[in-house]
Amino acid sequence: MATPSKTIAVIGTGVIGSSWTALFLTKGHKVIVTDPAPDAERKLHEYLQKTCPTVPRSTLTAVNCLENVTFVADIDPYLPSVDLIQENGPERLDIKRPLIARLDALTPPHIPILSSSSGLPSSTFITECTNNPGRILIGHPFNPPHLVPLVEVVPHPGTSDEYVDAAYAFYKSLDKDPIIVRQETPGFIANRLQAALCAEAYSLIGRGVVSAQDLDKTMTSGLGLRWALTGPIMTNTLGGGGDFGHFMDHLGPALKGWVYDMEAQGFDFEDKDSVDAVKQRVNGWVGGVDLAGVERRRDEGLVGLVQRKQNGSRRE
Amino acid sequence: MATPSKTIAVIGTGVIGSSWTALFLTKGHKVIVTDPAPDAERKLHEYLQKTCPTVPRSTLTAVNCLENVTFVADIDPYLPSVDLIQENGPERLDIKRPLIARLDALTPPHIPILSSSSGLPSSTFITECTNNPGRILIGHPFNPPHLVPLVEVVPHPGTSDEYVDAAYAFYKSLDKDPIIVRQETPGFIANRLQAALCAEAYSLIGRGVVSAQDLDKTMTSGLGLRWALTGPIMTNTLGGGGDFGHFMDHLGPALKGWVYDMEAQGFDFEDKDSVDAVKQRVNGWVGGVDLAGVERRRDEGLVGLVQRKQNGSRRE
Repeated sequence: MATPSKTIAVIGTGVIGSSWTALFLTKGHKVIVTDPAPDAERKLHEYLQKTCPTVPRSTLTAVNCLENVTFVADIDPYLPSVDLIQENGPERLDIKRPLIARLDALTPPHIPILSSSSGLPSSTFITECTNNPGRILIGHPFNPPHLVPLVEVVPHPGTSDEYVDAAYAFYKSLDKDPIIVRQETPGFIANRLQAALCAEAYSLIGRGVVSAQDLDKTMTSGLGLRWALTGPIMTNTLGGGGDFGHFMDHLGPALKGWVYDMEAQGFDFEDKDSVDAVKQRVNGWVGGVDLAGVERRRDEGLVGLVQRKQNGSRRE
Repeated sequence: MATPSKTIAVIGTGVIGSSWTALFLTKGHKVIVTDPAPDAERKLHEYLQKTCPTVPRSTLTAVNCLENVTFVADIDPYLPSVDLIQENGPERLDIKRPLIARLDALTPPHIPILSSSSGLPSSTFITECTNNPGRILIGHPFNPPHLVPLVEVVPHPGTSDEYVDAAYAFYKSLDKDPIIVRQETPGFIANRLQAALCAEAYSLIGRGVVSAQDLDKTMTSGLGLRWALTGPIMTNTLGGGGDFGHFMDHLGPALKGWVYDMEAQGFDFEDKDSVDAVKQRVNGWVGGVDLAGVERRRDEGLVGLVQRKQNGSRRE
């Protein structure tokens, strides 16, 4: 999708901010970026030269990827003239509140201010804003944002609908796959779903029902293969012969029985012995695994999966 | 892996039994199969001619795939000379108990009897066996078994270890990826993990936090892409910089908070209004979707994913 080039301010160049910067650059935008960490500029440049060429459909090379990025120690003088902000500061209210208040005060009231926050919903950190908090909302990516399409768009109760639409359209223009979370809920959607499954995984491993390695195989050789292609609701629907109601009526009772048993055997995060049992069993497996190799193959696999899915959806 | 050809008895040719038959044939085994349903033989032959050529690495064609399969109305005379049984009868104790007792009585005591049962653990249906219940256990596939590698091997408390090992080796020899479930637990592993995540999905959709379509995107554009490549425990470990203990110590508290909130907002399977709200929202989405097209692309995608993963693991 061809969109006019914007000037985007990226606040913070940790793992998430750097990856956003690579994505914005490869989609043709200008980026002004700041981070107070020592050596942040050099690290960002090295990261971009390595990463920009790997973004799906990127035309940037290690040589030309730095042309449209400007690292600045003080971003305040640039704020009046940017088109959009993607903020990636630390997840601490004592830092986030004054930071967001300053970004709100120094930018024209109509530009979207999007925060990558995963833990803090924006209603908790707009409290000191006096310009236009209605254009502030969460745009929470799934790591790394330059590869994984999902972005959770989460307004606070006072965010204007037009800014929800603007954030959605912006992420769409980057070939992302945004979803809208209509109520601020702890963990948003992806982290909640992940936590629901992980809590049961810890219970099963901690109780010795299955090894940590076999638990993971259940996903990578079974559930995960299907979920990469159809989500839980569509999977249920196809399992019900194309009828979700039929699925719920006929398989709901079995599902309910499993859920009750899981609640009865629920993992106790407060119990040190339970936590230690899981840690010990996991370490007994991963201690012997070449983690760097796993991570490299995961990242290669992710690039391939995203490219094939995007090519597939383009054909339709 | 080259293994000597076995003679395998397949009991029941519904969705699962037919798919197992296709897999066994493509791996070079002889299959003797029975099913009391009218027209079962014709349906099985049509299914095999369509399916056998699509099994990963299959050398069978629609023409020669029926050479090693024998459909019989009465399998009892064949039972003394088979090498292994894969049973796929209805998930009803009143049928399963006498069926398994007959299979146990009519086969030599050393041959493995593997049941595809997903709902009934084998301890519930071996109660009438008098020959050797120690060779009976669950080999629960993930549908369809001719494509998805996962098989859950679940012994009952009296199953001998040698038969757990034999079942594991047998499924491995079919290029499957078996796991061992060490305690009979309702839903085994995959269905429990799926139910844990689905219950939270129903709560989020029912409460209007997210649409059914966006809930599914959270998986297919985010979580599922990662889980197809690394399971939940390895994902946690990589998220903790290669240290699962570090992950639990630093991200465990956030996870715990989400789990507590999910428990407080837990989906009520007994409440008709909650169930109806989810059904209505799901139908508002899937009613407009070409489900046959979704299913076809899912199956094509599954073949591609399994082949790439198997090729990847062969290179290592």
